Amino acid sequence: MTELPLSKICEILATQGLPATLDGDDLDVRAVNTLADATRGELSFLSNPKYLPALQDTRASAVIVKDGVPVPDGVTAMRCEDPYTAVTVAIIELHGHRKHPAWGLDTAARIHPSSVIGENPNIGPGVTIAAQTRLGANCTIYPGCYIGDDVHIGDDCTLYPNVVLYDGTRLGNRVAIHAGSVIGEDGLGYAPRDGGWFKIPMIGRAVIDDDVEIGANCAIDRGTLSDTRIGAGTKLGNCNVVGHGTVLGHDCMIVAQVGLAGSVHMGDRVIVKGQSGVSGHLSIGDDAVIGPMSGVANDVPENGNVFGVPATGFTKASRAITALRKLPEALRRLRELEKEVEEVHRRLGKNDI
Amino acid sequence: MTELPLSKICEILATQGLPATLDGDDLDVRAVNTLADATRGELSFLSNPKYLPALQDTRASAVIVKDGVPVPDGVTAMRCEDPYTAVTVAIIELHGHRKHPAWGLDTAARIHPSSVIGENPNIGPGVTIAAQTRLGANCTIYPGCYIGDDVHIGDDCTLYPNVVLYDGTRLGNRVAIHAGSVIGEDGLGYAPRDGGWFKIPMIGRAVIDDDVEIGANCAIDRGTLSDTRIGAGTKLGNCNVVGHGTVLGHDCMIVAQVGLAGSVHMGDRVIVKGQSGVSGHLSIGDDAVIGPMSGVANDVPENGNVFGVPATGFTKASRAITALRKLPEALRRLRELEKEVEEVHRRLGKNDI
Amino acid sequence: MTELPLSKICEILATQGLPATLDGDDLDVRAVNTLADATRGELSFLSNPKYLPALQDTRASAVIVKDGVPVPDGVTAMRCEDPYTAVTVAIIELHGHRKHPAWGLDTAARIHPSSVIGENPNIGPGVTIAAQTRLGANCTIYPGCYIGDDVHIGDDCTLYPNVVLYDGTRLGNRVAIHAGSVIGEDGLGYAPRDGGWFKIPMIGRAVIDDDVEIGANCAIDRGTLSDTRIGAGTKLGNCNVVGHGTVLGHDCMIVAQVGLAGSVHMGDRVIVKGQSGVSGHLSIGDDAVIGPMSGVANDVPENGNVFGVPATGFTKASRAITALRKLPEALRRLRELEKEVEEVHRRLGKNDI
Repeated sequence: MTELPLSKICEILATQGLPATLDGDDLDVRAVNTLADATRGELSFLSNPKYLPALQDTRASAVIVKDGVPVPDGVTAMRCEDPYTAVTVAIIELHGHRKHPAWGLDTAARIHPSSVIGENPNIGPGVTIAAQTRLGANCTIYPGCYIGDDVHIGDDCTLYPNVVLYDGTRLGNRVAIHAGSVIGEDGLGYAPRDGGWFKIPMIGRAVIDDDVEIGANCAIDRGTLSDTRIGAGTKLGNCNVVGHGTVLGHDCMIVAQVGLAGSVHMGDRVIVKGQSGVSGHLSIGDDAVIGPMSGVANDVPENGNVFGVPATGFTKASRAITALRKLPEALRRLRELEKEVEEVHRRLGKNDI
Repeated sequence: MTELPLSKICEILATQGLPATLDGDDLDVRAVNTLADATRGELSFLSNPKYLPALQDTRASAVIVKDGVPVPDGVTAMRCEDPYTAVTVAIIELHGHRKHPAWGLDTAARIHPSSVIGENPNIGPGVTIAAQTRLGANCTIYPGCYIGDDVHIGDDCTLYPNVVLYDGTRLGNRVAIHAGSVIGEDGLGYAPRDGGWFKIPMIGRAVIDDDVEIGANCAIDRGTLSDTRIGAGTKLGNCNVVGHGTVLGHDCMIVAQVGLAGSVHMGDRVIVKGQSGVSGHLSIGDDAVIGPMSGVANDVPENGNVFGVPATGFTKASRAITALRKLPEALRRLRELEKEVEEVHRRLGKNDI
Repeated sequence: MTELPLSKICEILATQGLPATLDGDDLDVRAVNTLADATRGELSFLSNPKYLPALQDTRASAVIVKDGVPVPDGVTAMRCEDPYTAVTVAIIELHGHRKHPAWGLDTAARIHPSSVIGENPNIGPGVTIAAQTRLGANCTIYPGCYIGDDVHIGDDCTLYPNVVLYDGTRLGNRVAIHAGSVIGEDGLGYAPRDGGWFKIPMIGRAVIDDDVEIGANCAIDRGTLSDTRIGAGTKLGNCNVVGHGTVLGHDCMIVAQVGLAGSVHMGDRVIVKGQSGVSGHLSIGDDAVIGPMSGVANDVPENGNVFGVPATGFTKASRAITALRKLPEALRRLRELEKEVEEVHRRLGKNDI
């Protein structure tokens, strides 16, 4: 177990462009923990103001907070502009990233002789690698993964257990795919014919660029003709579905259970919140934000912020929601008003109008 | 095949606190079936009044029904207060639970020498158990499962094929996890930095308590700092997602395709219906019910019953839905009224007002 | 690589009842591609009018279009009534369907001696086939699949990697199931008892008829008593969930992330768009269409076209959506009108009314 003095963590933060100052005693800390669960010798943090009361009760020895946030007596404050990023750095320093089991090239992995494996492989039992595949250096392939024909994988990739890459899939460098995700399966491409469905061969590929991380049990279609593509640095959570021929830009965030239909063109740094969907053939501009449980049925411009089903601008959607809550009462008022106007007519003699 | 007289089934029900009386002949039955599909010699039941017509047409020899429900001539009624629970007991007596294939400790399972396997293991081919893991007695691990480093599993657990338990996961006793589910993968934890996403190591675990059953293709994140926890007796259906650090109480029911974001605190006996979502950091009180396709954006109190996106109290939500259906007509009436008031003004001489 | 003259493709189309005529030079083409990505020597097509501008800019040598659609100079038009189906035929001729790796009967597949394997098997490493199972001729079973006790599979089926068929499952002929899908797991069947949940054994099966194709990471429950059934020719995309005892007719299309609860009866040729849900015990008529993100809470008649949560007729739902957008403004107008009527009352002397 690593132990580090707070001052050392401040030094590390400074080298990463995240200057922090100590307000209180310099102490050794051995772990990062939540405000509620931390004990003496642990470092905690406050990022979401919702947890301010927990800060007053914490037993942590030190907390990372913004300037001006009051901390209890006897707790050292490490003050910086972005406590969330700072605590991430502290977690990495104190706990590190996951250490994978070391299989080397396991004898129970089945690798086709025509495939080429890069340096320093870590390939578990029960992995199957089909023909004409190329795997870069330092890749970890957990047990139960299947890598199809003609797949190219870059360096430093991690496939967690039971990941499936269909034939022709391309992964860049430092791609991580969590357990059970499937990349490059056929999309739902059929032509209606004679009252049934006539299967369209999917000759495009799924292409996953550098530094993409994909959660568990996702399904990313191959393209029908042109490739499906996930841009560099984009992150997807669990159980997301990406349709055939859809292209995502770089550094997007797709939360969970999102469905992107086919042939969507999404820009860079787009955020799609949980359980939302985007219809086929739409364009989503750079830096757009799609709210949770929203159904996007029209193009979204750069920096657009949409919500609802069908999704409209966030302010408009919020107003509609507020208005809808008032609607039952408004209908009552409308009926009342109709009666009053009726009464006015009666007094004025409606027939005369 | 088991055959049992109806009187014997009544006896068994009585021992389980479910007294039932026979109204008609005591007969041997060999199977339980639906009202529509049952044939002579089979036992059926009526729980949902929607199927009353099917009861009149059934060819079952006997039916479990409530007091006062009329049954056709020649069909024996087994009358009790809770036909649904009673038929469950009858199914168990006549058909039993699934019998797993018997692998013993299969030679094609790969178990790290540092891991400890309890008595009477049933571990199939293609299972990988990594280092420092402890498995209790009488566990069945189907082919293709992966159990990571430092996982603790209690007694009498069942992992169906291709289940993945990430490092550090904890399972209680009698936990069952259906095929393809993934427990303890990294959550979607990134700090935004320099226009991209900076990965946060997830040092919390996923902890699944006694008697939990999890459906197929779910994904339950590990915690970032504090553990994700599923309380004892809670049941989840298929394709559910539970975010990092979320805690569920005991005896909850999470139907299917539900998304619970991170750091949700859910009480006991909460029911979440299909395709609903709960935003991060919310509290859901004991015995709350979240309707289908609902998006919970605020805390829900004990016994709360919410519905809609964003979810509101069920009655309020229902009124809003009813009102919305009347809205197009109400807008027409509003225009009409505006014209009439305009006319009134004209008659009264608007300029004079 | 295949190369074909356009005239030959026209001949093939004619034999399939899809007559096409060439408008321009007869040329050899080597591949099909999108309008945007095609280069010289490639064939493209226009089906969605949204891509008309791309047609003007294409570098394809030939394009499949409807009569009357203008094409750029130097591009040969292959004119027919249904370009989408025609291009599908062209893709099959030029590119073919996927060629599976050839494993024969791999020595690392584990097949119980009581099971019977049909002619010409293609079964990869890491496949487990349990007892009393029958597999037809010409089936391809990719690595990591698990086939339980007493499963019957017809001829010419394909199970992609890590597919799981629980005990008792039935597959017809030419069934294809994509990676990670699970068929025949227990449904969410519990009787409430003593504040907890009492598991109901699921003694029905999952039955998948001829020519069904199922996407990746789906979960199709077995039946509690009567079977869950997917009718012939029905196609499902990714991450769909089908509840216990639900029956789908033939040639349905279930897009993605759809949740069908238990005991639903769905007719033939029903289309359910992405992320929709259907409550339990409902009937959906033949040729019905359920729009995206819709929650069906009532029976849908033959040819019904529904949308929304809860789903109503498409026209009604669209009117409600349009009306809702006008609601904030309507509430303002209502307040205005109330003031005006108040003023009218004042002028007329309200007390006198």
